[in-house]
Amino acid sequence: MALPVALDEQGDRLDRAISLRLAPITPTSLQRAVEESTRGGKRLRPRMALWFGDCWGVESAAAEGVACLTEWLHSSFLIQDDIQDGDEWRRDQPTLWKSQGIPTALNAADWLLSSVYLEVGQILVPDAIRSKLLTAVQDVHRRTVIGQQLDLDARADPDFNLERYEQAVQWKTGRYLALGMVGVAILAKFDASSIELLWKVGDQLGPAFQIQDDLLDMTRSKGRGGQIGNDILEGKPSILFAHALERGDLSQADRSSLIAVMGKPRNQTSEEDVELVIEMCRSCGAIDFAREQARCRADAAALLFQQIPEITPDVQESFEQLTRFAVERNR
Amino acid sequence: MALPVALDEQGDRLDRAISLRLAPITPTSLQRAVEESTRGGKRLRPRMALWFGDCWGVESAAAEGVACLTEWLHSSFLIQDDIQDGDEWRRDQPTLWKSQGIPTALNAADWLLSSVYLEVGQILVPDAIRSKLLTAVQDVHRRTVIGQQLDLDARADPDFNLERYEQAVQWKTGRYLALGMVGVAILAKFDASSIELLWKVGDQLGPAFQIQDDLLDMTRSKGRGGQIGNDILEGKPSILFAHALERGDLSQADRSSLIAVMGKPRNQTSEEDVELVIEMCRSCGAIDFAREQARCRADAAALLFQQIPEITPDVQESFEQLTRFAVERNR
Repeated sequence: MALPVALDEQGDRLDRAISLRLAPITPTSLQRAVEESTRGGKRLRPRMALWFGDCWGVESAAAEGVACLTEWLHSSFLIQDDIQDGDEWRRDQPTLWKSQGIPTALNAADWLLSSVYLEVGQILVPDAIRSKLLTAVQDVHRRTVIGQQLDLDARADPDFNLERYEQAVQWKTGRYLALGMVGVAILAKFDASSIELLWKVGDQLGPAFQIQDDLLDMTRSKGRGGQIGNDILEGKPSILFAHALERGDLSQADRSSLIAVMGKPRNQTSEEDVELVIEMCRSCGAIDFAREQARCRADAAALLFQQIPEITPDVQESFEQLTRFAVERNR
Repeated sequence: MALPVALDEQGDRLDRAISLRLAPITPTSLQRAVEESTRGGKRLRPRMALWFGDCWGVESAAAEGVACLTEWLHSSFLIQDDIQDGDEWRRDQPTLWKSQGIPTALNAADWLLSSVYLEVGQILVPDAIRSKLLTAVQDVHRRTVIGQQLDLDARADPDFNLERYEQAVQWKTGRYLALGMVGVAILAKFDASSIELLWKVGDQLGPAFQIQDDLLDMTRSKGRGGQIGNDILEGKPSILFAHALERGDLSQADRSSLIAVMGKPRNQTSEEDVELVIEMCRSCGAIDFAREQARCRADAAALLFQQIPEITPDVQESFEQLTRFAVERNR
């Protein structure tokens, strides 16, 4: 299934907005690293900012500013995430720390974060609106760090369960997805209750996307040079792992080997280990559970979105295409 | 020489302000890391914010907010800097990445950065003032990243010289030191030309502090468990190295061995290597040059400070104590 047309069409505009704002950085070593880290990806969040910006009559340059800052925040987190996970592939290219070294990769991540707040400072809106935007951006930044730490703490933890999974995605995944649309809603002067509903939409739709990513990781390579099961290699505390541990009705031996594989360092995990875990997730019902969970959350996002008074029927229709895309895409 | 009394007295107030704002973080692994990274240090920048805040009649809680955010920005950079340099000691304790691992250390650095911008968002000032504060904070954040990259690029570079040293400190050191006092000056509604002068004061005083640090590193351990010459171990492009390479009148053989030592990985640099470089800096006049440079810049900072219309004679007097402290301290 393809990206909804309304979002797909925003690609060129987004490219232009990003290049315009990231224009020459000195020294060139930093420029190279920043460019490398902002290449490719689905760019779903910034596309949402541009599209909703248009829907809600937000001035074009301001919506582009919001789009760019959501993408930079994302790129910055990805750089750090790859260092934290020891991940060597991203979007079918070597990760930034792998190609430029950890010191320069950290500077690029930091530069992107500074660019996020530069954009908040420069966007042409009244200062009262800017303050609201700052609060939203900063809150997402902060929550993501907490979620990331919960995620780190849960790596290969035998006590990991569905409740802890919910906690981690609540902090990390949802608000983060919603930032682009909330950002332009703030610029469009939506009232507080509509903004709150948009955050809640993210709380459902973000995990729906995430779960579909986790499912795809078991069947297809996610831009990692042909490698399947990357989440298993890094012991990622996904909904599949949580379900298998808590409700999977595994034998004591299976349970022990699942925990052992998830706890192995990346370079010691074999292809057989990965296949073993995938087969276990299939047979214990974790895959079916995850698929159902993704669908429920995507549906819940669509229902919540409909409650927002500012939403017109055609915007609702496009949004529902997006929620279907979240859980039906195969890449 | 001791810290000027006006700054020294701010210690308890600063401790209280920081603990109040950093109160419970979940998960506790993140709390532990953040606490560890905000312990100790001279805390010069936040002390300057508190002191100048009092001098210029800034509301106490707002000045404390500025003080805290300057300290968090600093702590965040130090965490990353230690990872980039592979530094294992800081303030006579293991560095954060060494004690908690790189993934958690990165999260703590990111949490502190998010706290910087949280404070900008929460400080009780009119939104127009908040926007100015955001611009100042963000600009320092950004410049520091550029300076850090220039610094990385210059590691053990045989073409490193005084011009490139100036470039790096211009980006990294000066504005960074000035942020606390500029922050409270913005809150005190200083006009644009006074703010600009304060930044220029920082451009002089920051490097003066830095050069004194570099000099002390050659004679005393800077909180690194007794280790002298840490800058040499990491090949830091200091003013001493720049002077020795550019003007040191070294023989070709000495020049080559200087470059070789600066380029060696930390764990391959011997005590003899460190002694060799220190002796070379002494005999080629780099130490005398650096000492003179520090003094000139401290004096220039005092002269610039005096030109600011808002400065009263007693504030000038305390500030001059600070400029002397910058270059006469022995720790």
